[in-house]
Order: sequence, then structure tokens, then C-alpha cells
Amino acid sequence: MTNSKAHERIDYLFDSGLKIVQSDALFPFSLDSVLLARFAYVPVQHGRLVDLCTGNGVIPFLLSQRTRGRITGIEVQPEVCRLAKRGAVLNQLDGRVDFICDAAQKLPGIIGAHGCDVVTCNPPYFTREAARDLKINRHLAIARHELLITLDEVVGTAAGLLRQSGKFAMVHRPERLNEIMAVMTRKGIEPKRVQFVHSRIDKPANMVLIEGTSGGHPGLRVLPPVAVYGADGKYTKDVWPS
Amino acid sequence: MTNSKAHERIDYLFDSGLKIVQSDALFPFSLDSVLLARFAYVPVQHGRLVDLCTGNGVIPFLLSQRTRGRITGIEVQPEVCRLAKRGAVLNQLDGRVDFICDAAQKLPGIIGAHGCDVVTCNPPYFTREAARDLKINRHLAIARHELLITLDEVVGTAAGLLRQSGKFAMVHRPERLNEIMAVMTRKGIEPKRVQFVHSRIDKPANMVLIEGTSGGHPGLRVLPPVAVYGADGKYTKDVWPS
Repeated sequence: MTNSKAHERIDYLFDSGLKIVQSDALFPFSLDSVLLARFAYVPVQHGRLVDLCTGNGVIPFLLSQRTRGRITGIEVQPEVCRLAKRGAVLNQLDGRVDFICDAAQKLPGIIGAHGCDVVTCNPPYFTREAARDLKINRHLAIARHELLITLDEVVGTAAGLLRQSGKFAMVHRPERLNEIMAVMTRKGIEPKRVQFVHSRIDKPANMVLIEGTSGGHPGLRVLPPVAVYGADGKYTKDVWPS
Repeated sequence: MTNSKAHERIDYLFDSGLKIVQSDALFPFSLDSVLLARFAYVPVQHGRLVDLCTGNGVIPFLLSQRTRGRITGIEVQPEVCRLAKRGAVLNQLDGRVDFICDAAQKLPGIIGAHGCDVVTCNPPYFTREAARDLKINRHLAIARHELLITLDEVVGTAAGLLRQSGKFAMVHRPERLNEIMAVMTRKGIEPKRVQFVHSRIDKPANMVLIEGTSGGHPGLRVLPPVAVYGADGKYTKDVWPS
């Protein structure tokens, strides 16, 4: 375990009023998570929600503003999970949002199978192979590369957690969309909504938001695209509504 | 055979200088085909190109302006195929563009397997089931619904025609994207490029352009979206460059 506390800071999450504990020695939350938390369907009044590979908990914190349901985040790296737990206290969400420091694959065994309404995940985007030659810190490598969990395991874990008609929402790289859809279909989660994120509207997509329904019928909706930056180089309203 | 000649007219294809023979009694070409003809990769100097379900030949005519290769269109409805053949003469393309009046599925048996560089197709979008209750004319029903050819057969025929690394480009409905990608993958055509078409940029996509490579490696590029109409209600430059 690294002594990373000296590098920790508390940031505000956009204009949400939420605080997030970050560490320069680990890795910060990303726009990907913020967009996923906005994209995902959530039941408003109650429900059981789970966020796999939760990092410092940014997705559960943002989702907590859209639902009164109970949210559990699971994070395999103890140093990172500790930041999430501190965030829950800071934001006075303990009781409604909780974190488990363990491998995501174990979650159905911990909280029970097929009881969740929603599963979200901002998983490692890159394969184990792609990680080989990279010289990045171990925490970042685990978050970005499929060293401890694969796409297949993420979707399989979600399928094991979801009730019939429950929803799985994920952010990922468009390069892997074909594989993502194939894995979801194979695990019984039918892709239903997709939204592409472009750094600018005239550039190829660099992110995909995808949602599927457990046991759903075929039929995909491709939502209007999200542009991160406008022609003026500033954030668009898609990203920073105000 | 209906006597549709009285309803025929000759239209210009946008600003291409090309003429197209249309019939009100059959069905006109669509923006879908025009966008596909722009989206598809074509070898410039030479090559063997094929357009399945070619209708009145709009895709071969438009592709002929981007390549010196030889293009064959195949159309199962004789009355419609006749319009395409007249168009080839009108545009002085006979010799370089030819049309076969037969079922697309038979094409590999007619021109030989695995000899094509490019296969394009604007296929029927809707399943046979969806056609049951529709009261549209038979010509339109065949063009729009999978009465005489299915998605599986379109992609399978393309796979049979393409050489190794040859490209298949298709326009279709986003609702069926998951199925499209699965069929392409199963037939050995790896999806490589996708572009979504939105009636307006703030509306869900109503068309998808997709290209795959025979025997290609995984890795998808999602191109910038195409908007058909601008905020002013007029065609955008994506659709009508001028």
C-alpha cells in the first residue's frame, strides 16, 4: 500500500454540490463517469443500484441525486475504495450509499443474485495485451486495463446481479462496440440505448454510452450525439449544463 | 407485370449531372442510397464492385463517379431493374456499369465467388413479420420488407462475393444495429466504420451507415454524425454539399 494521503484533495463535482476525494497518486475521476451517471436510467423513488469498478465513488454520488434507492459501489483497490468511503461520509450519504472493497466478480455472492434494478460500470477500457508495454502506475493500469477484470466478467457480473428487466449501463470505447454488443447479447442483456460522445461534433466518437435490459427484446435507440467541446473550444451544454 | 411506363420520369441526381429513371408506380430512390454511395470506400483506379438490391441503379451510378472500376447491380424485380438498365444507357455508362435482373442470392453463382473488392447494399429494412399488416404496393413491400431476401442472406451473399480484405458497405436502421453487427461478424465481415444519420442533430438516429472488412481485425471507428436538416429546416452541407 502506498502512502497516498499526502496527495489527497477534496474537489467539488461540477455544480452538483457533491464533494469527491481524489488523490494525485492514484487517479482522478473522469468525464466518462459523469456522462454515464447522467445517461443511466434510474428509478426515482426506490430500488437497488450497483456500481461496479466504482473508483472513488463518483458514479454512486451522482446517482444518489437522481434516486432515493440504495446504491452499492464495489472497488477492488483498497486505497481507492477508501477514498469512496470517505466521500460517502463527507457527502452525508452513508446509509444510502455504501462501498465494498473487493473484486466486482464477487458481488453476486456478497449481496445476492438477481436482486438489482440497475448496474452501472465505467470499466477498464483496454485489454490486458494492450497494457504490456505501458509504463503507468499500477493503480491507473488496473483502472484502465483488463488486468483484474475483463469485459466478459463485467457484463457477466451485471447479468448475475440484475433482476428480469433490470438495466445495465456502461461507458466504453467505440472501438470495442461490436464486442460489447456481442458479449451483452450472449449474457442475456439486450442493448437498448446507445449514445456516442465526440470531443467535437465533427470528430469521430471517442466514447460510447450503452444501456441494455436483462431479458429485453431486440431494438436499439441511438440517441442524439454528445459533443464535449464546441467550435469555440469551450465545454458544450451537453457536458456542463448551466 | 404492371404497365408502369406511363408513370416514368427522368430526374437529375442532386448536382451530380447524372440522370435516374424513376417511376411513381414503383418507388423513387432515397436519400439512404445517396448517403451510402458517399460513405462507401471505393478503389479509384480499378476494381470489381457490386451493388445488391440495386433498385433503379442509383448507387452504381453515383459510385461510377468515384471509381473507374467495373460495377454490377443486381435487382430482383424486373420492372425496377429495367429502369436501372435504361439509366445506364442514358448516363452513357453501359460497358462500365451493368445490371442483372435476378435474385441477389444468385450473384456469386453468376459472376463467381470471392472476386469483388466492394459490395454495397441498401437492403429491405424491415422483417417479414413487420410487413403482414401493411397495405402498400407489392414493389415497395419487396424493397422495404424482407420478403425476398433477409439481412442474413444479404450479408452472406456479400461475404461470398468479397475477396479477402474486400469491403461491404450497407445502410440500415439503427434499431437493428446489434443484429447487423452480429450477422456481419458471423459471416466473417468485421465491422470497421459506422456513421449515424440524424434527421436533426438533436434527434435520435434514423439511419446507420456501416462498413466491414472481409477477414478484418476487430476495431470500430464511429465517424462524426450526419445531420440531414439544420436548425433552419434546410438540408445541411452533410447532405447537399455546395
